[in-house]
Amino acid sequence: MNASLQNRLFRLVKRPVGEPRRDDFAFDTEVVGQIDDGQFLVKTLYLSLDPAMRGWMNDARSYIAPVALGEVMRAGGIGTVVASRHPKFKEGDTVSGMLNVQEYAISDGKGMVKIDPNLAPLTAYLNVLGMPGMTAYFGLLESGQPKAGETLVVSGASGAVGATVGQVAKILGLRVVGIAGGKEKCDYAINEFGFDACIDYKNQDVRMGLKEACPGGIDIYFDNVGGEILDIVLTRINLKARIVICGAISQYNNTTPVKGPSNYLSLLVNRARMEGIVVFDYAPRYKEGAMQLGQWMAEGKLKSREHIVEGLETFPETLMKLFKGENFGKLVLKVA
Amino acid sequence: MNASLQNRLFRLVKRPVGEPRRDDFAFDTEVVGQIDDGQFLVKTLYLSLDPAMRGWMNDARSYIAPVALGEVMRAGGIGTVVASRHPKFKEGDTVSGMLNVQEYAISDGKGMVKIDPNLAPLTAYLNVLGMPGMTAYFGLLESGQPKAGETLVVSGASGAVGATVGQVAKILGLRVVGIAGGKEKCDYAINEFGFDACIDYKNQDVRMGLKEACPGGIDIYFDNVGGEILDIVLTRINLKARIVICGAISQYNNTTPVKGPSNYLSLLVNRARMEGIVVFDYAPRYKEGAMQLGQWMAEGKLKSREHIVEGLETFPETLMKLFKGENFGKLVLKVA
Repeated sequence: MNASLQNRLFRLVKRPVGEPRRDDFAFDTEVVGQIDDGQFLVKTLYLSLDPAMRGWMNDARSYIAPVALGEVMRAGGIGTVVASRHPKFKEGDTVSGMLNVQEYAISDGKGMVKIDPNLAPLTAYLNVLGMPGMTAYFGLLESGQPKAGETLVVSGASGAVGATVGQVAKILGLRVVGIAGGKEKCDYAINEFGFDACIDYKNQDVRMGLKEACPGGIDIYFDNVGGEILDIVLTRINLKARIVICGAISQYNNTTPVKGPSNYLSLLVNRARMEGIVVFDYAPRYKEGAMQLGQWMAEGKLKSREHIVEGLETFPETLMKLFKGENFGKLVLKVA
Repeated sequence: MNASLQNRLFRLVKRPVGEPRRDDFAFDTEVVGQIDDGQFLVKTLYLSLDPAMRGWMNDARSYIAPVALGEVMRAGGIGTVVASRHPKFKEGDTVSGMLNVQEYAISDGKGMVKIDPNLAPLTAYLNVLGMPGMTAYFGLLESGQPKAGETLVVSGASGAVGATVGQVAKILGLRVVGIAGGKEKCDYAINEFGFDACIDYKNQDVRMGLKEACPGGIDIYFDNVGGEILDIVLTRINLKARIVICGAISQYNNTTPVKGPSNYLSLLVNRARMEGIVVFDYAPRYKEGAMQLGQWMAEGKLKSREHIVEGLETFPETLMKLFKGENFGKLVLKVA
């Protein structure tokens, strides 16, 4: 281990107002510190860029503590152990965990898991086999309570969570209708992910699209976007429908209050429910989820599509692709 | 049976815009028709006036068909059978069912149940032993999933549903905090219904009131009012909280869109859920509910408070008391 090894990293230095900007971060270069007994050094290969990161930047009570000002921005990632004084991790191991937005991370092993680079492409461990996959799998199964023959609608259909939700629902025998931005994404959802239909919210009327694509109404709505689309879906839900609130990317950069669903009384009329989920609640069952999703991938029933952008230095602009809907598949930053 | 028996009644003749007004109804006098084989004639004693009636006046898809223009306004009530050619109902029977806003109703028995006037005051059959009681009991138990030691908040705390929700929750060992309009109602909720606390939303800051009255957060919110209060409650819910959407009286006379809960993402942060209920779903279990509630009444653990206004002719103005918060207890119209 080189004593003058340089680490480039992004620290959060301002709480963003609205869209996060480059000057909310400090892009620094520092010398990598020495590892102590029980620690190891990880060289970051890939970082996962997720909508949830926007929430972590706010100084607000949430399901996880905010990133403190001055801290390296939090991010999950995949890396290689390059030096170790830890009994369970050795040089050459590939690991997944919170590496944060930097080239090198020192870890005591907490929250780190070894992954097998021969079983699946590394980036799949940030997608179908990672947090988005677990979110999709447990959110759909536990909160969505899917039954074969039902109709599921998922927003953010070509995104990391949405694509897996839709594919798993198809495997389970549901009719699956996606909502995504742009013809290319919609075509892909239908032709590659096997969705029954997909509504292009940028170029189609979502209300009419849902009417046509869901003639029997909607039994499950897996929501990643919130806002107007959630409100429209609420007008078309069936009796005892389940709405899984996974995210609300349309609202994360608001400088005005979040748009609440005006049509929420449709829950009453339809004795339906709306439930929030957070993937961390299923941590004790991640292995079960990964095994099932991995098996479906191996059988060719489940595809993992990543959108990979190169260069740690592009982090703030690359993150913004999520909020502009410019990513197509799971957004991943290639660091090394 | 007098061949020239007169029936006074209110027909819905216009769809109200905003608050229902007297001229949305026609107040007519008609001769009561003859009963056929299999029918009986009921003289209305009491009518139940409920927030849900506002929804029935709208020409909108809901859990029940709207009242058609020209039809007698729908209402549940208690009456006496005054003539019968039905094998199961005889003169002198006291019945409960959809009598509608009129002095006499002809029935084929569908939806009518005989009640025992010796077991409880008649008006209790429109309150704790009627639809509001069933709504409170099954909504709380089935959707609220109460556990002893938890904290429940209920809005409309001195209203028909709210008072029973709170009292049943106390019986089940929960901490109960009401929200009601005015000091008199709040004092009553505490002193008569046994609530632990009650926030007077007309004279207190609800946010501060909840902070003080629910130091451990809110596990169940039983919502009868919607609007701003729902939004405030959402900021104080606990992990895995249950919000029962029973009604939204603050929004029923809106001429602008319903105010959706801006803080609905608190459901995500807290993995909480919001579920709508409609009492009719529990019809097969009404007997079970009435037996339990009746037993608690007999034991003195559960009180039924009615606000009785006399005179069929006052119907439109009396109904409006609900939306102005002028009723104190279950609102009942005494017809005969």
